[in-house]
Amino acid sequence: MTEYNAGLQAVLEFVRALYEAGVRHAVIAPGSRSTPLTIAFARHGQIKVWTVLDERSAGFFAYGVARACREPVVLVCTSGTAPANFFPAIIEAYHTQVPLLVMTADRPPELQGVGSNQTVDQGVMFGTFVKRFIQMPVPGVQAPLLAHARWTATRATALAGSEPKGPVHINWPFREPLLPPTDVRQQEYGGARQVHVGRLTLAEADLAGLAAVLQASTRGLIVCGPQDEVGVAESLLALAEALRYPLLADPLSQLRTVRNASKWVIADYDVSLRAIMAYSPTHPVRQALMPDIVLRVGQTPTSKTLGQYLASLTSARQVVIDGSDLWQDPFFTATDVWQTDPQVVATGLLRMGVPAGDEAFAARWHSLARVTRVALARSVGELADVFEGRVWLELAQAVPQGSVVFAGNSMPVRDLDSFFPVLDRPLRVFANRGASGIDGVVSSALGVSAANQAPVFLVIGDVSFFHDQNALLITKMHGVPLNVILIHNDGGGIFSFLPQATQPDVFDYFSTSHGLDFQAVVENYGGRYERFSSWASLRRFVDAASSEAGLRVFEIRTDRAENVRLHQSVLAVCADAIRAWGDGLGAGN
Amino acid sequence: MTEYNAGLQAVLEFVRALYEAGVRHAVIAPGSRSTPLTIAFARHGQIKVWTVLDERSAGFFAYGVARACREPVVLVCTSGTAPANFFPAIIEAYHTQVPLLVMTADRPPELQGVGSNQTVDQGVMFGTFVKRFIQMPVPGVQAPLLAHARWTATRATALAGSEPKGPVHINWPFREPLLPPTDVRQQEYGGARQVHVGRLTLAEADLAGLAAVLQASTRGLIVCGPQDEVGVAESLLALAEALRYPLLADPLSQLRTVRNASKWVIADYDVSLRAIMAYSPTHPVRQALMPDIVLRVGQTPTSKTLGQYLASLTSARQVVIDGSDLWQDPFFTATDVWQTDPQVVATGLLRMGVPAGDEAFAARWHSLARVTRVALARSVGELADVFEGRVWLELAQAVPQGSVVFAGNSMPVRDLDSFFPVLDRPLRVFANRGASGIDGVVSSALGVSAANQAPVFLVIGDVSFFHDQNALLITKMHGVPLNVILIHNDGGGIFSFLPQATQPDVFDYFSTSHGLDFQAVVENYGGRYERFSSWASLRRFVDAASSEAGLRVFEIRTDRAENVRLHQSVLAVCADAIRAWGDGLGAGN
Repeated sequence: MTEYNAGLQAVLEFVRALYEAGVRHAVIAPGSRSTPLTIAFARHGQIKVWTVLDERSAGFFAYGVARACREPVVLVCTSGTAPANFFPAIIEAYHTQVPLLVMTADRPPELQGVGSNQTVDQGVMFGTFVKRFIQMPVPGVQAPLLAHARWTATRATALAGSEPKGPVHINWPFREPLLPPTDVRQQEYGGARQVHVGRLTLAEADLAGLAAVLQASTRGLIVCGPQDEVGVAESLLALAEALRYPLLADPLSQLRTVRNASKWVIADYDVSLRAIMAYSPTHPVRQALMPDIVLRVGQTPTSKTLGQYLASLTSARQVVIDGSDLWQDPFFTATDVWQTDPQVVATGLLRMGVPAGDEAFAARWHSLARVTRVALARSVGELADVFEGRVWLELAQAVPQGSVVFAGNSMPVRDLDSFFPVLDRPLRVFANRGASGIDGVVSSALGVSAANQAPVFLVIGDVSFFHDQNALLITKMHGVPLNVILIHNDGGGIFSFLPQATQPDVFDYFSTSHGLDFQAVVENYGGRYERFSSWASLRRFVDAASSEAGLRVFEIRTDRAENVRLHQSVLAVCADAIRAWGDGLGAGN
Repeated sequence: MTEYNAGLQAVLEFVRALYEAGVRHAVIAPGSRSTPLTIAFARHGQIKVWTVLDERSAGFFAYGVARACREPVVLVCTSGTAPANFFPAIIEAYHTQVPLLVMTADRPPELQGVGSNQTVDQGVMFGTFVKRFIQMPVPGVQAPLLAHARWTATRATALAGSEPKGPVHINWPFREPLLPPTDVRQQEYGGARQVHVGRLTLAEADLAGLAAVLQASTRGLIVCGPQDEVGVAESLLALAEALRYPLLADPLSQLRTVRNASKWVIADYDVSLRAIMAYSPTHPVRQALMPDIVLRVGQTPTSKTLGQYLASLTSARQVVIDGSDLWQDPFFTATDVWQTDPQVVATGLLRMGVPAGDEAFAARWHSLARVTRVALARSVGELADVFEGRVWLELAQAVPQGSVVFAGNSMPVRDLDSFFPVLDRPLRVFANRGASGIDGVVSSALGVSAANQAPVFLVIGDVSFFHDQNALLITKMHGVPLNVILIHNDGGGIFSFLPQATQPDVFDYFSTSHGLDFQAVVENYGGRYERFSSWASLRRFVDAASSEAGLRVFEIRTDRAENVRLHQSVLAVCADAIRAWGDGLGAGN
């Protein structure tokens, strides 16, 4: 005879209210204590349930789904160490404002702290990395508990999904028996609750003040860091056009890959500013490019060089516009902070009318970008050896419109930044840049794939791929497709670029050669494994993505030390071209 | 030109003081911000450095090393999400009182909360799961900082290593440049500091009180749950002998596998008490076995049946002796709590002299155990199909003296409990029973192997093996040997025993068949993979462990539903034999 727990109807009501509030995906790591939640989601019928065995992978997968669909996604696990495996994904979600509803099953209060099995102190266990911690009562048959469950579901979904979005932790203590009743009356507790959440807006007088600042400026730049809110890229592009400001776009800003980007967006600053920063601050070339105003949107840009450049602009007015309360400015050069939605600011300014900036100034920046791009393409094209950075030039050519490009940390995203050009072809470009971990990258990309109809191309290094290989089970169990370009240089390639490389006696403690080949692993999950033979083979791999489903991995083997030399040679060619351009600029002015 | 940071001498002093305080192992997950720590450990020369790529695996590996060698082990990682991957191992360490020195590198205070890359709020991030959180200052050249670093290293090591042992979190903010100086004067800051930490002891009057309680009792049991402190097993055995009390020993108590155990130790209670509990509490058989006193040591026993039995003994005096402050008693039946070292209690009582208990009472318990063991061995031996529980009977026969046996959660440890007999052969037996997670088990077993010269035999299910497969890289990179007996039933076998199995429409959300075969994976790490052909093949696999090094995996395929039937048939045979014994007991009394 199976025993049911009548009180668990509260969990069924909770899940029903989640659906009414807009939840469409639940990622569940199997376990026993979480049985009421698992069954409630499994039987709901309208919520897609993803079973993922490894909680760490489940966390990042849910993160990827939520990031792509921009709606709160549920994450469920059992008690004990299971929730702790969610922690890396929760940190990343908090830092990139991605809405998650993290539901951890727990033992009831009377089994806390008394040596009961699989029982740990789950209260507030994610510390400052969740927007709120909600401790649920043990479900019971009392009517207020059902109403409270519905109310909390609605409230938690709104909380996770309103600005700044982020993870919310709901801890559910369950008493045995764990099976919920099956004969519940579905409509007893009313229909969906209507929720309306306001957004930060600006008084017209405030906007007019900013417009006045722009009136007083002539040489402006817009800098957009990582962001992927709907419509922000388009509205910043319209603002750049009205102001005639060059728009320095992080590869994760979605601005390099949007229609009509190429007229205003500059992508090559990570390469060009290295050469420009080699001039002294008072040099005419630096002066010719010096803005008097910088409008900054999005998270801190990926490019360290751009950061150093922004830090050097101490005489420019620097306006940080940030919808969250994070005030991202590690350079401490912001003169104005606008804590509000950048789209609201852009639209408001355009409505008021803004002056066109100095066209010659803008033209210099675009000219620098063209010179850099030509030198870059030529020098990369001339390399006989396999150069990691070229992956991004090839992908830019080959990836079909509407696809998603996902860059791993830590080298791929830097190469993406340096080498990925401006395209007028809409693509979405992602990386995990909240905490910039190498963990969970495959799972995150799979989450994005699960939420999208379009192909996803993940470029990832071997250490990061190794770290999150458990994610590949998601492709096998759920058929989620993924195209992986695996840059395999047998270790942590970034360290070859860092000062640690000057310490041969300890260098292998950083670079950590592991000697693994991944073909057997990938094939074990039913994936296809292919190896680089030429750049044409990479293009064929990309082209075949639309016709071939499933897990596909394309391995490019490179050498870490050689890779540093190739980077240096490309940068040297670009620096030469930029110096020549600078000389011409001096002569022409 | 390489830039050095003179202030980082504090880190070198810190590591030197750790060594002086007894630290011998450092497990390092590579990263950039942690460079000062990595280099300090790598250059120390006397501390064994283990590089482990996956932080989650690194955490459990360090846990395993610390558990086996019982001394604080260092765990190092970079900033961002990296520390969060340590969280599961930290929780397990906290709940099993295993000393870890968790060192997380961080960015300096001026880069906190301003959008700096890979920077998250690492303060107190492990919440209630560490004994203390220590925020270090940014290293500088001021003399007090060097003295403070030495002092903190000594203090943190003593803190982690003193009762109740546990993890300590030390967060180290580093400013660039990250390379420590190489020309430090080694002896400037004095020699090792002498540290003496007292232990909880008892007044003679207290002990005399307990001795008086024992004087007033005749029918006693000793129950020992999981524990692996040196000497506790031997002293409890001596106490059992003096008192003539049957000693019900959890498989993780180290009491089933100690010299001269068989005369006093009972291992079969998980099977026998199921049959005994089927009698009503007032039945003569229950009464014949009813103790008037129970001495309880160690963590909560693994056996749920034993727990229910202890909970039923409401008229017995139940004395919990626990060196930690955890007071493990989820049954709430403890009448006396002795928060002190059980070895001190046992030795003290033996010194005072204790009365011998009722020998007939003890004989009944031992007679029940013999009947159970005979029925169990016979019924298991008669099964034609491959029975998961038999693994433990075979291992008990075959495993050489001095080996380590490690049981995975959740089915293997339960079968270990039910089926592993009392041996007079010293073995160490481990499982992760702090939070009883299925995560990190392979890494933990490898940590134990790394700290031991003896072979380690890990029995683990397929879900848990999958979860922690990244651990296998440790065998490849560091040559740590491990013998794995992989019980592969394609999913979470325990759910077939639970009420979820009665819900066919949702059952696969729990059991989660994954369809993976692990041969290619194991071979990819340079391991040997073998499959069950007969029980003799398992014995050969065990026998070969002493001559073959490296990673060796022996797969036993079973069927989850069939496994439930086999368990039930074995338990039914035992129940019949025990009922017959009970009838005889009634007739004989």
